[in-house]
Formats: sequence, structure tokens, C-alpha cells
Amino acid sequence: MAFSRKFNKPVTTTDDLGLGTRDGNARNVNKDGSFNVNRVGAEKFKPYEIYHLLISMSWRKFIFGILMLYLIMNLVFATIYYWVGVEHLAGIDLAGSETQKFLDAFFFSSQTLTTLGYGRIAPIGSLASSVAAIESMLGLLGFALATGLLYGRFSRPEAKILYSTKAVIAPYKNITAFMFRICNQRSNQLIEVEVEITLAYTEPGKTVRNYLAVPLERKKINLFPLSWTVVHPIDEASPFYGMNEADIIEMKAEFVILVKAFDDTFSQTVYSRSSYRAEEIIFGAKFLPMFSQQADGITRLDLGLIDAMEHVELPKPEIQKLDAGSEQQQINV
Amino acid sequence: MAFSRKFNKPVTTTDDLGLGTRDGNARNVNKDGSFNVNRVGAEKFKPYEIYHLLISMSWRKFIFGILMLYLIMNLVFATIYYWVGVEHLAGIDLAGSETQKFLDAFFFSSQTLTTLGYGRIAPIGSLASSVAAIESMLGLLGFALATGLLYGRFSRPEAKILYSTKAVIAPYKNITAFMFRICNQRSNQLIEVEVEITLAYTEPGKTVRNYLAVPLERKKINLFPLSWTVVHPIDEASPFYGMNEADIIEMKAEFVILVKAFDDTFSQTVYSRSSYRAEEIIFGAKFLPMFSQQADGITRLDLGLIDAMEHVELPKPEIQKLDAGSEQQQINV
Amino acid sequence: MAFSRKFNKPVTTTDDLGLGTRDGNARNVNKDGSFNVNRVGAEKFKPYEIYHLLISMSWRKFIFGILMLYLIMNLVFATIYYWVGVEHLAGIDLAGSETQKFLDAFFFSSQTLTTLGYGRIAPIGSLASSVAAIESMLGLLGFALATGLLYGRFSRPEAKILYSTKAVIAPYKNITAFMFRICNQRSNQLIEVEVEITLAYTEPGKTVRNYLAVPLERKKINLFPLSWTVVHPIDEASPFYGMNEADIIEMKAEFVILVKAFDDTFSQTVYSRSSYRAEEIIFGAKFLPMFSQQADGITRLDLGLIDAMEHVELPKPEIQKLDAGSEQQQINV
Amino acid sequence: MAFSRKFNKPVTTTDDLGLGTRDGNARNVNKDGSFNVNRVGAEKFKPYEIYHLLISMSWRKFIFGILMLYLIMNLVFATIYYWVGVEHLAGIDLAGSETQKFLDAFFFSSQTLTTLGYGRIAPIGSLASSVAAIESMLGLLGFALATGLLYGRFSRPEAKILYSTKAVIAPYKNITAFMFRICNQRSNQLIEVEVEITLAYTEPGKTVRNYLAVPLERKKINLFPLSWTVVHPIDEASPFYGMNEADIIEMKAEFVILVKAFDDTFSQTVYSRSSYRAEEIIFGAKFLPMFSQQADGITRLDLGLIDAMEHVELPKPEIQKLDAGSEQQQINV
Repeated sequence: MAFSRKFNKPVTTTDDLGLGTRDGNARNVNKDGSFNVNRVGAEKFKPYEIYHLLISMSWRKFIFGILMLYLIMNLVFATIYYWVGVEHLAGIDLAGSETQKFLDAFFFSSQTLTTLGYGRIAPIGSLASSVAAIESMLGLLGFALATGLLYGRFSRPEAKILYSTKAVIAPYKNITAFMFRICNQRSNQLIEVEVEITLAYTEPGKTVRNYLAVPLERKKINLFPLSWTVVHPIDEASPFYGMNEADIIEMKAEFVILVKAFDDTFSQTVYSRSSYRAEEIIFGAKFLPMFSQQADGITRLDLGLIDAMEHVELPKPEIQKLDAGSEQQQINV
Repeated sequence: MAFSRKFNKPVTTTDDLGLGTRDGNARNVNKDGSFNVNRVGAEKFKPYEIYHLLISMSWRKFIFGILMLYLIMNLVFATIYYWVGVEHLAGIDLAGSETQKFLDAFFFSSQTLTTLGYGRIAPIGSLASSVAAIESMLGLLGFALATGLLYGRFSRPEAKILYSTKAVIAPYKNITAFMFRICNQRSNQLIEVEVEITLAYTEPGKTVRNYLAVPLERKKINLFPLSWTVVHPIDEASPFYGMNEADIIEMKAEFVILVKAFDDTFSQTVYSRSSYRAEEIIFGAKFLPMFSQQADGITRLDLGLIDAMEHVELPKPEIQKLDAGSEQQQINV
Repeated sequence: MAFSRKFNKPVTTTDDLGLGTRDGNARNVNKDGSFNVNRVGAEKFKPYEIYHLLISMSWRKFIFGILMLYLIMNLVFATIYYWVGVEHLAGIDLAGSETQKFLDAFFFSSQTLTTLGYGRIAPIGSLASSVAAIESMLGLLGFALATGLLYGRFSRPEAKILYSTKAVIAPYKNITAFMFRICNQRSNQLIEVEVEITLAYTEPGKTVRNYLAVPLERKKINLFPLSWTVVHPIDEASPFYGMNEADIIEMKAEFVILVKAFDDTFSQTVYSRSSYRAEEIIFGAKFLPMFSQQADGITRLDLGLIDAMEHVELPKPEIQKLDAGSEQQQINV
Repeated sequence: MAFSRKFNKPVTTTDDLGLGTRDGNARNVNKDGSFNVNRVGAEKFKPYEIYHLLISMSWRKFIFGILMLYLIMNLVFATIYYWVGVEHLAGIDLAGSETQKFLDAFFFSSQTLTTLGYGRIAPIGSLASSVAAIESMLGLLGFALATGLLYGRFSRPEAKILYSTKAVIAPYKNITAFMFRICNQRSNQLIEVEVEITLAYTEPGKTVRNYLAVPLERKKINLFPLSWTVVHPIDEASPFYGMNEADIIEMKAEFVILVKAFDDTFSQTVYSRSSYRAEEIIFGAKFLPMFSQQADGITRLDLGLIDAMEHVELPKPEIQKLDAGSEQQQINV
């Protein structure tokens, strides 16, 4: 029996993923939720793109970048003061070496850029004073920007969902089910958490990708203090009904996961994306609990146990062979 | 008569709370809305977690922390300047005692960290100047962070709902009802306020917790300038129909309250959580009004009256004995 | 014919306003959208309440407050420096008058609070230096707060809806209709604008207020670049069907208006509230257009014409006498 | 056959656009999404309007404005110091030329406004000190404002949708369809993207504009990493069924496009607007793909190809003549 015929309804009622019908074997969505798309032709140095880059980059790079910028700004202005002439900077020892003079110009620059202004070295005359006036304003604007960027980096609402590294096919009631486990990686509270799974697959012998909405045992939970094992029961309504491991790998199945939640700290809706490919499914395993009861009655949740699982036997025939003569349904996007 | 049979529909249509089927007697949700969960295994010193901690901590701790940080930073840099040699700080009296020199280095540090830079004490030479250049930049970044944190602490939308300390079972129309009272603790406006109650209970003799959605007389109000007494009528559709106080305590009932509202000041949706355990229900009491009409026609709302109630007789038999032979319905999560 | 009987359905399907059944004649919602409620018993000096106050107050008061705070801080610290002894402030002319010394301490304080730090006057010794270290840090924190407050004041999403001062009863198709006009007062774009009207009224001879949802010809518009005349047709489904002006005044009718929109600049949902009392309705007038076509084909919208209207004759009997013997429907809250 | 009769249902179920029934030929919505409306009578110098202007203006203008403001503030305060008398500024060479004195006052002002405060020039006496105290506070407030504005400019969520310059009428299945193509211009992720098209048209020989909701083959996609060709099939349900190019131009058709999406970076809903007039439709063309598969399996999306299209023959009779005797349906707003 062809699974596509059975799925007429779910397919037509689901919203299209918008991923297009791409050929090839590359995954649609990477494990970190980014898309496997290389954008060209966009202007890269628009203010928004730079801002987006600066609040998305790692903290290591960001802090290094700020330090570098501070160093470069001071080098540039030190060069300008040196070029204008250090005799316009009162307090600099004109009898010193050229290196010492440049260093003094550099430190004067740093005292100007941060609006520190000790005054031991101070500009005399219009030229040096003008440069200092510009530098101090740039310094203030620069730190105004840094203030905004730091706040933007911290306050950006983002769901940090911990996904189990692998999905499993485990016994479930009298049948089997596709399962994976998620957990809130952060200490904030997520509320009204919803999961949507879309299956991307390629029919044997074809290159066009198809997409199917995958029905879940439960789509939404109200509160999310613990872990949640998302369950797709492989019953007659499942596209995998009667399949075995080889079939699922052959159809190049990729489960695209979209998690939507309400972040209680920032009061905003957040999304998380991930995906499991056929190779990332363990057949015949089940998840072990991540939480236990402490002596004081408080529940203890150990995030380190996200991948804790044990081997289980699947019922035989666990998932049967795909019916070869089935007419496949396609969504061409 | 079994209450579970009657509740087949509400149970299946409600979204799962996501609290899991935990054993034991600990409450699910604490009075302040936090969960009774101890998270381990998460990385505690990620930037986000630190930020989350800093904007969630009490003001007392936050201000103390900023003062401590300022003190420590100055002590650290004073030590560095002292170690580099106070002879590189022009203006320090080299004839003074070592304590005085260290103190002068400390005050020079404070003038550098805040970018005050009087210049009475100023660095000479590359070493001291470099340290000062770094310190002044750290100072600016530190205050950039403080700016963001202060804004983040203030502008964090959060519903401060005042809950009555106790819930009551009071006469209601011709029957009785479970009631509690809420009020907006803040002077901002909450709009489109919705309440959802989930009952967590344990069947006598069992340890697994069950969850039930509890139907309300009214789920939502549009405006919330006054108090709102949330009412669950104990009619035939109620899980408590025919129960008495002992039954409710025996089933370890906990009413988990979820309040959702739109904050008119920050234009964001906010949530508040709380819970009432069986021991926190007063049988035979009703709430007295919190608001009265002033002479000038303006309504006066007194938040101090949130717990104002008076004793009332419940109709006899107010709530009868639980039918022992009832088949209980369970949700195993 | 009693209007209440006709309205059974709208009444039961509308969400309660949450205003309570208050006695008396005071209006529920003031023209500026605030509620006629006096809250007591709340703690007034919590950080959030102060923040809320500071971002809600007028700009005039806010700027005056900042200037006052700056003045007071400087006076306080000047007093401390003066009390510590101006001999600890190098650069102050110790031969000057006491007034001059205090003024110098005051200006030194201002140079410290703003982290200006000219250094012409600078602290000597641990005591004055400590005070200056504290003052400069307070100054930075203060301006960090001011930064957040200024941003908070500006970026607070808020619908500034211009309401026509009066509502009108005007001819509409073959009947009459209650109408008022709204317009976006700001130059930002509002999208998906929804209006909800609730009628608060008191039955003749009674004191308890009742609430009714009032049906509109159109509840929502997608874009809002022009004005919108909100129309409640007084047909058989209207609570005013068959009433005249005296009836409407006698029932102390108050139309509570709730406008909901999406602010395209801040990408957030915003609300606006207002109300019209019976006395603010003009019987027999219609609004004149606020916009006209310019020679270049561009539409010209004049906000000054929000109240532009002309007299029109209402059809006779325009709105008839209320049926005295009608049984009124009540919602007791 | 009249298209209006067929469209009774879509017209009545769609929300009104809120654009009003304006005469004339000017387009409703400009290509950049702004409205063709000239607002007068609004107060232009309210704080919010200024803020809105400052975060909406181009970066070029914004940066130029900040520099100008800095220059003007310094000129104003330099004038004040000069007027007060440069003899109150210790460190200024009183033997210099008047120009030099004014320049020194100017640079002293810049050192005060940025709270740099070298101290080489410092105020003496109450008058100059008072002016400096005020200037330094204005400087801090000004940079506090700049901080907020910079953050506000960057963090403003805004959908930057790239629209194809022209729309096309292309063959589609066995009929033809109206199509245009959109693409996310930014590197952020847009989620749950919805498109709504409203047709504004004028009946031949009349001046009042009518509005129709235009049905789409697909209204929403979940993810938007690639391009999306929005398709309105010209079948029996289309207002253009049986029309030709001349008919569409004669009816002054304007397709008003409203795109709604969820911005994954800022976690907020964003909108984009644009429109196509009849003259901006190419009859007999189809879009060429914007993305291709790279050797490494990654999809390559070239934003520069947004307008890539090729000529195609439309089926004959592609779109027939409008039935002249049709009764048109109107929405008068």
C-alpha cells in the first residue's frame, strides 16, 4: 500500500515549508537550525547587515573585535597627531626619541577617545585641538554603539533548545514510534511550546524532493520545566508504516523540526529549528528519564542526560518493506 | 459517582501542562510562580545565563554587586599601578607612606575607570599609560553594560499579579464554587486577561499525578482596573462535585494557575503563575469587595483588602463524600 | 419592545469588560483612556512604579526633574566637600569668601558628577578623593539610567488615536447610526486596526450598571492612512432601536471604545481607549470628509478637520420613545 | 459575464483596506510601501514625531545631522564663553587674536561637551563654571539620546522584502496566472510569511475606486530561505478572467501587496507593503530560477536575479475581452 495515497489530507492541509524542490543530497536544515543556502548578490555592508553580524557573532570574536577597533582607532589618531606634530601636544617631552613621541601621541589618543582627558598631555593650537574634538566625539559615539550592541546581544530573545543528538525508533504502545527529545537549555521559562515536523524525502530513483507534514501524538505543551519527548507514532497514518531501516535511508528522509515557544523572560515568541537525517535515527532504542525525585521532593533535571538511552528490541516485523509499486505523492515547489 | 468519567472531554481537549507525572508530595508550582525543579548539567557561566541572573536578581543584590565590582576593579588596578611603580604616576607624593601611595593609586584608578581624569595624578611612561588606556576602556564598557542592565531590569515586561493568599469554597448561586481573587499589583494597565486552572491530583493509594483542566465561569476579561474573582462552579461538571474537605486534601489537590495578559505599557504579552494546594483553601468563606465608591464618584480600590473575606455557611450537604468505587481517569505524561 | 430581550446573544458572547457593576454616575473611562479608579494600598516606591512614572510623565516634567536632580546632587556633594573641608580640594582659593568656596565646591562637584574632571580643582587626600570616587560612579550610573529612560520614553509603543470630540447620530442608509471618527495622530503606520464598543448603561430607577457589546458595520480595517468613521447602525439589533435623545441620556449611556492596532514602526500591538457619554453625542449631524484630492493626485489629509461636521435632519420618527414596560437584561459583575 | 457578480463572496469576506474611495489616478501605495497621502494639521514637533523622523531617516542624513548638531552646540557655547569673557577661562592666551580666543573657547567647549576636560583650559569664577556645568550635562544627555537613537535605528524590526520590479502574466497549468516574485533582502530569517493582494480598480467611465481581495494559489509559507513566486491563477474565480491587456490598463488596476512575516532575529512580526500598477505587468513572461545547486550540494541563491525572466507565448485567447455589459460591484468607503 502506498503511503502517499494515505497522506493526501495531511499534505494538502499543511503549510508549505518554503524550502523548494531541490535536487541533490544536501540536508535542508543544518543541526544548528541554519539553512543550507548560500546567498549571493545581497549588499553585505549595509548598516543592518553589519549590526546583524555583530549581534550574531560569538562573544569571543565580538570582544576581540572591540579591542582591535580600540587599538586601530588609537593607532590611526596617534599617526594623525604625530603627523600634525607632537609639538602641538603640550606635555610631551620633545627631547624624547621618535618612538617615545609616537607612544605619547598614542596614549594621548586613548585618553581622548575614552574622554578621560587627564590633561598632562593636552592639545595646543587649532589643528591638534580639532583632531581631538573629532576624536572625542567619535569615541562617545563608538561607546554609544557598543552600549547598544551589548544590550542587543544580551536581550535578543532566542530559544536555546537542547535536542537529543539522535532520534530513535522505539516501541510505543503496541506499535513503534519515531521519537526525539528536547529540553530548554536556558534557565528562563518557555511557555506554550509547539513542535512541527516536516519530512523531506526523495523517492527512490528520482531527484525531486517531496515534503510531508508528520502527525504528532502531542503538538503542544503549556509549561516546559522538564524534558519533552516528541512522539510520532508509526501507525497506519504514518508515512513510515511498514518500512524498515533500509527504506528510510533509501528515501533520504530528513525530519525538519520547527519549535515555537513563548519566552517568559523577554515576553516574546521565539523559534528554534533543527533536523534529523535518516542516518541520525537509532532503530531500537528508547530514552531514559532525565529527571528524578530528590529526597526533599524537588524534581532534579540533569541536562547531561539528554542523550541517555538504552537498547530495546523492536517488535518483529518492526517496520516492513515499502510497497514497491506505490504511487508517490509529490509537492513540487 | 466517579468524577473522572464525567471529565473525559475536558481532559482530552486540554493541552498537557508539561509538568510530567512525578511522584511525591512536593508542589508543582511554588507560590511565586517558579517551578519545583532543580536543574543540573547546564552550563552556568554562559553570557546569557549571567545576563538572565543579573536582570532577575533583587535590586538590593544588584546595586550591592555593582558597588562591589567597582571596588574590586579599583583594588585590582591600584595593585597593578602600585606593582608597576607609583613613580610612573606624576602627582603622587613619593615621600608619603606606602599606604598613602597605594591609596593614591586607588583613587587614580577610580578617576581612570570612570574616565574622570582630573590629571592631578597622571601616568608617565608607556607602562602606566598602557594600563590606564586599558582601564579606561574597561570602564566605558562596564558602564555600557550597566546601562543595558539597568534598562533591561526596568523594561522587562512582567505581570505582577496579586493573588489572594487563600482560595475559598463559597456558596455560588444554588451550589458552591471554588474561588480565588487576583488584582494587578502595578499601576500599569493589563488588557485581555485570561486565566487557566489545571488541577494536579493523586488518586488515593497511588503515587502518579494526574492533571485535569478546570472549567471556569469566565475565562477572560477585557480590562482589568479592578479586582477579579475567578470562579470555578462546583456543579456536575466539576471534579469536586460531591466531595468534602477531607476528600480534597486526601487527593493532594493542587490548583496550578496560569494568568496571561497584555501589558499596555510595554505592549507585550505577559504571564503569571501561581498555585493553591488543598491546605490553602478555606471552606465556607467569601471575599469582601476591594473597591468602594468615593464621594466624588471615583472608584477606590484598596489592594490591602485582597484577602478580606468573611465566614459563610456552606449549604448542607455542601460537598459530599467521594464515591469510593469510582474509576479514575489518568493522564500519564 | 424591550431591547434587552433582543440582545440575549450579543451579551452572552461578549467578553466582560472587567469594569465591575459600580453604582453612581462617574464615567468608566476618561477621555484620555485612563480609568476612573483610585488605587490605594499599593507600594508606591517600588523600582517598577518609579520607572513607570518616569516614562509616563510629560516631557516638561521629565526634563525639569532631571535638571532638579542634577542641581540637588551637586548641592548635596558640594555640602559634603565643604563639610570635609575645601582645603582638601587643590586649586580652590582658600583666601576667598565662604560663599565663593562653597560655589567652587559646587562646580568641582559638577565636574566630578559629569566625569568632566578638568583638574583645575582636584581632590587631595583620602577623604575628598573617596567622596569624588563615589560621586563620579553615581554620576555614571545616573546617566546610564537617563539613557535608558530617554530610550524607554521614545520607544514606548503607543497608539495616539485622535478621536472626534463628539459622536453623532446621523442618517445612515434608510435608518440612523451612531458614529464617531478616528484618525492616527502620529506619522507612523497603524495596520490591522480593530474597534470594539461596549455600552455601559443604567436602567431608569436602578443603580447597577449593565454592559452590552455594540455591533459595528465594520470591525477592522487593514491599513489606516486616512480617517475612519466607525459606524454602529441603529437597526433592530441595536440597543437604541426606537429610542430618542432623552432616553439615551436617561439611561446614562457611556460608549467605551477600545482600539487595537499593530504599530508598523515598533512592530508591536498597541491599544487606545476612550469613551463617549450620552451628553457627548450630537443628534442630527454628520462628519465632513477630512481628506481631499490635490492637483498632483496625492490625497491630502487634514487632521484639523477631525471634528468637521454639518447639521442634518434625522428621519422622523428618528428614534422613538423607549418602551416603558420593557424587561431589561442585566449583567451583574 | 460580469466579474463582479462572481466576486460577491470574496469581496464581502475580505477586510477593507482602509484606503478610502478616492478619485483620480494616483497610485494608492508607492513602490517603497509608503502611502500616497499628504498629512497636514498634525503637530510636527512633538517628541515622538522627532524620534520617529530620526530613526526613519537615512544613515547619511543621520550622521550628518549628528555632526552638525555637535558643531552648532560648540559654536553656541563658544559664543557664550566668548561673550562671558575668555578671561574666565584659565589657560587661554589673552594676548592672542580675537579669532584665536574664539577658537580656544570653541575647543574648550568641545572638551566640555564630550566631558573630556583636559583642564589645560578650565573655567574660573562662577559664571564660566556655571555655563560649563550646564554644557557638560547637556553633552551627557545628548550622547544618552544618541545611544538610544543608534540602538533604535539598528534594532527596529523591519522586513526588507525584495520585490521583482515587474509582475508578469504567465502560463500556469492550463490557464494563465498573475505572478510576482519576492525574496528576503536581509540575511536574517523570516518565518511564517503571508501575502495578501488587494486589487484597486476603477470601472471604465467612473471615478470611484473599488477594492477586491485577490485569491492566491498559496497564501503562506513556513520558512523563507529562498525566493517565493506568488501566484494568482486567472481562473473563473479571478476578476481578470476573460480580460486582455487593454482591459486591465483601462480599469487602472493596482495590485496592493501586503506581506506579513515573523522576524527570527528580533522575534517580532513585521510587515512590508508594495504595489504593481497595470503598466508594471509584463504580459507573456515567466520568472527564471534565482537559485541553483552548487557542486557541494549547497543551494546558491542570487538576489541579483530577482528580475530574471524570459518571454513566453500566452495561450490564445489568453485573456479575453471584458464583458461590456457587466454590472460592477462596488465598495464605497
